[in-house]
Amino acid sequence: MSGPRIFVLNANTTASITDLIARTARASARPGTKIVSATAPFGPNYIQSRAEAAIAAHGVLTGLAQAKRPIDAAVIACFGEPGLFAARELFDFPVVGMAEAAMLTACQLGRRFAILTAGARWPAMLDDLIDDYGLRDRHAGTLALPVSGLQASRNRAAAVTALVRLARRAEAELGADVIILGGAGLAGLAPQLRTRCPLPVVDGLAAAIAQAEVLAHLAPSKARVGQFAKPSALGFVGIDPALAKAFARYKQR
Amino acid sequence: MSGPRIFVLNANTTASITDLIARTARASARPGTKIVSATAPFGPNYIQSRAEAAIAAHGVLTGLAQAKRPIDAAVIACFGEPGLFAARELFDFPVVGMAEAAMLTACQLGRRFAILTAGARWPAMLDDLIDDYGLRDRHAGTLALPVSGLQASRNRAAAVTALVRLARRAEAELGADVIILGGAGLAGLAPQLRTRCPLPVVDGLAAAIAQAEVLAHLAPSKARVGQFAKPSALGFVGIDPALAKAFARYKQR
Amino acid sequence: MSGPRIFVLNANTTASITDLIARTARASARPGTKIVSATAPFGPNYIQSRAEAAIAAHGVLTGLAQAKRPIDAAVIACFGEPGLFAARELFDFPVVGMAEAAMLTACQLGRRFAILTAGARWPAMLDDLIDDYGLRDRHAGTLALPVSGLQASRNRAAAVTALVRLARRAEAELGADVIILGGAGLAGLAPQLRTRCPLPVVDGLAAAIAQAEVLAHLAPSKARVGQFAKPSALGFVGIDPALAKAFARYKQR
Amino acid sequence: MSGPRIFVLNANTTASITDLIARTARASARPGTKIVSATAPFGPNYIQSRAEAAIAAHGVLTGLAQAKRPIDAAVIACFGEPGLFAARELFDFPVVGMAEAAMLTACQLGRRFAILTAGARWPAMLDDLIDDYGLRDRHAGTLALPVSGLQASRNRAAAVTALVRLARRAEAELGADVIILGGAGLAGLAPQLRTRCPLPVVDGLAAAIAQAEVLAHLAPSKARVGQFAKPSALGFVGIDPALAKAFARYKQR
Amino acid sequence: MSGPRIFVLNANTTASITDLIARTARASARPGTKIVSATAPFGPNYIQSRAEAAIAAHGVLTGLAQAKRPIDAAVIACFGEPGLFAARELFDFPVVGMAEAAMLTACQLGRRFAILTAGARWPAMLDDLIDDYGLRDRHAGTLALPVSGLQASRNRAAAVTALVRLARRAEAELGADVIILGGAGLAGLAPQLRTRCPLPVVDGLAAAIAQAEVLAHLAPSKARVGQFAKPSALGFVGIDPALAKAFARYKQR
Amino acid sequence: MSGPRIFVLNANTTASITDLIARTARASARPGTKIVSATAPFGPNYIQSRAEAAIAAHGVLTGLAQAKRPIDAAVIACFGEPGLFAARELFDFPVVGMAEAAMLTACQLGRRFAILTAGARWPAMLDDLIDDYGLRDRHAGTLALPVSGLQASRNRAAAVTALVRLARRAEAELGADVIILGGAGLAGLAPQLRTRCPLPVVDGLAAAIAQAEVLAHLAPSKARVGQFAKPSALGFVGIDPALAKAFARYKQR
Repeated sequence: MSGPRIFVLNANTTASITDLIARTARASARPGTKIVSATAPFGPNYIQSRAEAAIAAHGVLTGLAQAKRPIDAAVIACFGEPGLFAARELFDFPVVGMAEAAMLTACQLGRRFAILTAGARWPAMLDDLIDDYGLRDRHAGTLALPVSGLQASRNRAAAVTALVRLARRAEAELGADVIILGGAGLAGLAPQLRTRCPLPVVDGLAAAIAQAEVLAHLAPSKARVGQFAKPSALGFVGIDPALAKAFARYKQR
Repeated sequence: MSGPRIFVLNANTTASITDLIARTARASARPGTKIVSATAPFGPNYIQSRAEAAIAAHGVLTGLAQAKRPIDAAVIACFGEPGLFAARELFDFPVVGMAEAAMLTACQLGRRFAILTAGARWPAMLDDLIDDYGLRDRHAGTLALPVSGLQASRNRAAAVTALVRLARRAEAELGADVIILGGAGLAGLAPQLRTRCPLPVVDGLAAAIAQAEVLAHLAPSKARVGQFAKPSALGFVGIDPALAKAFARYKQR
Repeated sequence: MSGPRIFVLNANTTASITDLIARTARASARPGTKIVSATAPFGPNYIQSRAEAAIAAHGVLTGLAQAKRPIDAAVIACFGEPGLFAARELFDFPVVGMAEAAMLTACQLGRRFAILTAGARWPAMLDDLIDDYGLRDRHAGTLALPVSGLQASRNRAAAVTALVRLARRAEAELGADVIILGGAGLAGLAPQLRTRCPLPVVDGLAAAIAQAEVLAHLAPSKARVGQFAKPSALGFVGIDPALAKAFARYKQR
Repeated sequence: MSGPRIFVLNANTTASITDLIARTARASARPGTKIVSATAPFGPNYIQSRAEAAIAAHGVLTGLAQAKRPIDAAVIACFGEPGLFAARELFDFPVVGMAEAAMLTACQLGRRFAILTAGARWPAMLDDLIDDYGLRDRHAGTLALPVSGLQASRNRAAAVTALVRLARRAEAELGADVIILGGAGLAGLAPQLRTRCPLPVVDGLAAAIAQAEVLAHLAPSKARVGQFAKPSALGFVGIDPALAKAFARYKQR
Repeated sequence: MSGPRIFVLNANTTASITDLIARTARASARPGTKIVSATAPFGPNYIQSRAEAAIAAHGVLTGLAQAKRPIDAAVIACFGEPGLFAARELFDFPVVGMAEAAMLTACQLGRRFAILTAGARWPAMLDDLIDDYGLRDRHAGTLALPVSGLQASRNRAAAVTALVRLARRAEAELGADVIILGGAGLAGLAPQLRTRCPLPVVDGLAAAIAQAEVLAHLAPSKARVGQFAKPSALGFVGIDPALAKAFARYKQR
Repeated sequence: MSGPRIFVLNANTTASITDLIARTARASARPGTKIVSATAPFGPNYIQSRAEAAIAAHGVLTGLAQAKRPIDAAVIACFGEPGLFAARELFDFPVVGMAEAAMLTACQLGRRFAILTAGARWPAMLDDLIDDYGLRDRHAGTLALPVSGLQASRNRAAAVTALVRLARRAEAELGADVIILGGAGLAGLAPQLRTRCPLPVVDGLAAAIAQAEVLAHLAPSKARVGQFAKPSALGFVGIDPALAKAFARYKQR
């Protein structure tokens, strides 16, 4: 049987993170699913601020526009999924965000999830996402390693030890029912955390792959009307031709 | 390859609805998934009110307690999923609700979903669920056929025609981006609605099966602490022994 | 003068709790009010989890259906009032919940109330209720004795000492203006707490009896249209005949 | 048996409205309750705007300060209850507002109440109150007669006819479960509305008297700490001596 | 060039506070702006409670009605701006509140502001304002000096030291991005706080003057319809004639 | 006297819109203010969708990074202010958004504002902004001309006529107190709308210039700690060197 083709785009421009993500995604995908990965064509090495995320959103749209078709579903592999709603508007295939997928999956396992991630600004940045998704009432809080996800990806044993400590705080202090582990650089650490945590653990990347498989399977049609129909554009200055071509041609009224 | 065993429990006590659900669930499951269905052991023929839903919640817990193991994930097949959070507390396997699964799936396809269902009280009853799930901001509104889902299941051509009309209203009047079709009695109608609707359509049962497959695949561990750990009980009067046995034994402090 | 007949249903199946409730209710009722009490016909000995509450909701509806008429108002005597909105839909008399009555009464005494109760899962379970009632902004928090209400009812001196401590924390740490004391097993402890607490104390059972007296006095008519009109039902499998009879007969369209 | 002494203060300065309120309050009070009424010592003849309500709040505090003791509970008889929270802070007896009492009572009869009142600005003014009380989720909407409550009090037959029409719209268009009738000038019209309305009707004044009786009966102690303890004041310029005396003396730190 | 005439009304009746406010306002106004100050004609010496604020709202409306015209914009110089919305309804010129102006200005500098003020009840009183303004999501919390603003105005060195400490807590414990300094008695302390605080500091009075200059410059027309059109009144008992005259004459329908 | 230097960046890449904005900004600025304008260095000709807004956010950051210093405050001249919070994080000068400035100004003139703009997707896109700013409760609704703002800028007489009609609907159907006119292409139309509208009208561009003048005048210090301190970055691929240089250098821990 031939499974779906899932395109996983690293929103960061660090190739070693793309490799880590691709490896972890393949390990968690179902048999038959084909994982195709790519690195954002431009932007920050590793997103740690709103400003980098804003730049990366453009990189993500460009990377999705350049990707070889067919794509049955795409995953924006950054736990902050820059450009997610814009991508849903622009492209014909379903687009999945790591944080959103993790949170929606966690909602099916308890009342309130806590998020563990890396990087001091991420808790505030995720608060904005959580509000955008309407999930504030389900969010017990976010606890972050003080180092960046890139650094955590290079010292995995220390990261696991610190994450186990954060998981304990999430349960005792935040009253969480479910733990979400997020951040591209933390990909692959969930199994080790899971064995040492008394709450269910949802891994952001595994959840994103699984939700991408769901959407590829259900194959919803692209909106032909409304705010998620493909937008038309009057024209652009200085952007990648593949991205400009992704827009419909503007018809003068 | 051997897929997951998904237990689908009709929360109503009408066997023809169980058959319809089982047939539709099998058609939408992935290859390898084993769908096992059952009818609630007691309760309303077809839930159309809060009072019937309250009775059905007990029936659902009893039905889940009586079901043959192993269960990799269970689906409460009623678009109001009576007893959902109680079941998540009590049982070791993941439990999926049709409305919740449909809404979480729809959240990945747009900003605001409209729900189409059958039965005059369901819009108000779903409002409560949507608030419980924290998804009010994502809900454009609910439009209901005036007949019960049971009746709709017996006159499917008329139901489709009426649902297409509701879908148009959902887009034009409610500003929905995504259409959710829900209600046990409406199982199997989504493909016909889809071809006649310019917005993506999420079928409640298909979404529930897909999310159950996700949870069976991710296999999150049962909470061992907190409000979703298995509850202990002091004892019961007059309930099914299988249900009483599902609780942990109460330890006196 | 002949006062109202208030039916007080213990949602738990422990008779000693029914006695405690009835005694306390009588002490707090106005002269002329007739308190009639009963124990739920089936269900948990003492509700301490969502799963037990879901079972008890069915028990409550059955107990209300079986009760001898006339009833001028009913009180669901469990600080979690399982089945409250379902009962309001199904029955012609007003139905009062202990937690809801306490919270609405407390709203008239300050901005934010704290709840003191017994049992580790009750704070989370009450959060759901409080959200359902739309009172989150008025809720300063819930503090719970670690033991069950049943145990607290058997060691009342220790319970009072511990509750006084929780009341102090509610004022100092949660910034509460009003203290609510809730839980069937804590019935009758309010007077002792009151003398040792610098904030007004609302007793759940006393508030429920008082609000039941209000509704019996105002005698609002039963809704004849909309979601709180008596629901019709298609039929049932395996439920108490008195409960089945409480529904209107379903008219085929 | 000797019942409570309830002080009913007309927040408006029109004596005929005070008479109407007193008469209606007496008709709805329980046997034994003593209704003592008064007119605000200064302020607007009939409140119809935020500016008049702000002036009336001072009049209400002055009227409460001047009232003869003992008072077991007070009612601010204006469906907008100017100065309610300030009065709760300042005085030792419980203070009840007509709109708040009506809304809290209505919450026990359904999910969402609609308010019928008189005066074009009242819907917006009540929206603010409803938000302050945290009851927005329970509010289906407000519909107002275009005339002032004072005028409505002078043409009662026309008012009833118009209110019945508004009640129908509240049910059909707003989806209300319960109807609240509010406004000092509409006092006494509830019985006529009730017989012609298929939803339960809560009369603002009757609810306020009943809730005042509840608070007089429960006799909660005045907060001795926190934001509802009696405030101390440094001194005043140009206010009524009775009002100045109601404050505690300020102690220099 | 001739600038706007800004009327600054001290809502308290302490003249030394009026002087402090006027001096600070002039120091922060732009060249050309004319600051005219006045003391409320009656009311509390220094507002520290809801009851005093309710009295002061009447004083504010009276003071604004008595003020010599023309007024290009008015500032209610009390960090709780009693009567703000009533004044906007009643008067033809724009009316600015210190707390509101500070909060709206702070919203342009970060996600979440903390408020530093003086007086134990102000945090709770400001919570109500913040809810009324719809800004709860932008509010990190309020920290208050234990003394009144009047006392703080008399011991400014101690106040600054204590405020610097509170600012640190606001950043470390509340996660604030911006610090608001509010309270008539704290006028003029912002520059000293600013040099010792690593976050941007918004001074309530400076923000109010600046926003009043904005509104004087934009010169929006007074609403001629709706809830902020000038209200008509039926008449008054015992209020200042200038205030009564500010209302439009009531036209009988 | 030398006034502030305000940098106005057209987030679109159409030079005629930059000219229109610059002209209108100069007409509305105070004497002494120096308006410096520029066109985004790359991106969409005229933003009409989420996807274009995401691209434009990168263009805005780049344009701000390239702009000649000193800048006392910057205005993102697009009524959707792409990249606003990212710009606040990255740059040392205050950054003002047209929609945010208009909404915060309008909050000082009434309870609820309606927005009039151009382009079918803008109402939904603004809903997201309004939620991000926490102003949902102050928003009566958005009404949009069906044509793009670019087209409206080319047929101004027709635009005014249509806007007057929308303003009437905003008042009658949405219950707005204040009208906001937004959209780069609608710059300069406010005076004509104002004379034909019975509610106060806030022009987005005029409000943005005025608020930029406020922030330039108050000169708040840049956050040195927390989520709005200048972010450090690990490095970038393929972005403008000026933009990369705007980040602080990343220090390895």
